[in-house]
Amino acid sequence: MDAFARLLEAFERLPGVGPKTAQRFAVYLLAEDRQAAAQLADTLGQGLQKIGRCSRCNTFSETPICSTCADDTRDGTVLAIVETPADQQALEATLGYRGLYWVLMGRVSPLEGVTPNSLGFEALLERAADGQVREVIIATNFTTEGEATAFMLSDLLKRKGLKVTRLARGLPVGGELEYVDLPTLAASLRDRRPG
Amino acid sequence: MDAFARLLEAFERLPGVGPKTAQRFAVYLLAEDRQAAAQLADTLGQGLQKIGRCSRCNTFSETPICSTCADDTRDGTVLAIVETPADQQALEATLGYRGLYWVLMGRVSPLEGVTPNSLGFEALLERAADGQVREVIIATNFTTEGEATAFMLSDLLKRKGLKVTRLARGLPVGGELEYVDLPTLAASLRDRRPG
Repeated sequence: MDAFARLLEAFERLPGVGPKTAQRFAVYLLAEDRQAAAQLADTLGQGLQKIGRCSRCNTFSETPICSTCADDTRDGTVLAIVETPADQQALEATLGYRGLYWVLMGRVSPLEGVTPNSLGFEALLERAADGQVREVIIATNFTTEGEATAFMLSDLLKRKGLKVTRLARGLPVGGELEYVDLPTLAASLRDRRPG
Repeated sequence: MDAFARLLEAFERLPGVGPKTAQRFAVYLLAEDRQAAAQLADTLGQGLQKIGRCSRCNTFSETPICSTCADDTRDGTVLAIVETPADQQALEATLGYRGLYWVLMGRVSPLEGVTPNSLGFEALLERAADGQVREVIIATNFTTEGEATAFMLSDLLKRKGLKVTRLARGLPVGGELEYVDLPTLAASLRDRRPG
């Protein structure tokens, strides 16, 4: 197999990338922007060398403990569980959370072979039972798989005597009742709050 | 900027890849399949080193002349102009063409800054005027940009005294008149052949 075919094969291993997209990426990088190709090869190589996991929260980190976990101004009594670093960034961007995180790096998905075991629930339970953590906010996505993950986690964490909460469901800010989908409207009715 | 952010930046330079897809690729490669990450970094690095262009047809090649151009059983009097290596492969797969190729590696697209100059029309005209080539089959795509490219090429090649043809437009094999789009049906009527 020649170098071009091997490159296509490598691109096709990316999630959601088939033969056409792989070809598009490879032709673009080799014919139009070889500097971007070099940048991608370099950053990937460097990433593989440098990027490990934070031992406290499981996110990507170049140091044994990431900067968020090392920040001692944060509130160690609250732990938010998120699926990905992007979800963590979204919560951080609200400026409304000063606790710590656990990043699952995925969600339970039996069809894709992702089990509580392979997601490292054991390590999470150990982290949550450090004696400092009082409340665990399960902030997985409100998708079927995120909900299933939350359900399993909630059960396990409650057994450890921890207070478990989830993000509120309801109308988005600026939302109109007429246009919101029914399950969301039903949830916001059920979870109504004192006015 | 940390190694993860630099990796995201590199992925975002790929065509059609935004922040979400870049994040998906990076998380997948670093968290789920580091072997695929190494493979991509390696094949990209190797590709940059090894893959140049065939001096006869402009396609990607690890040798100065690609295996198709070096194959002296092929018919040097016919030259097919295609947009990409994938288009060349599609023609080869028909087993109906034994001539040679010129691979444009793109199509004229003023909006994206791709001009006849940057596409190397000069080199193509020189190649087509080698004295052997009698007929040039312009096999660009039947998109607006492909048609514009074909129109320009046709003009330039005819001035060199070459016979210029294009792929036939018409109903696909197995197609039904009732369901085919009107421009295609009109073209197949105009280009009707002896029955």
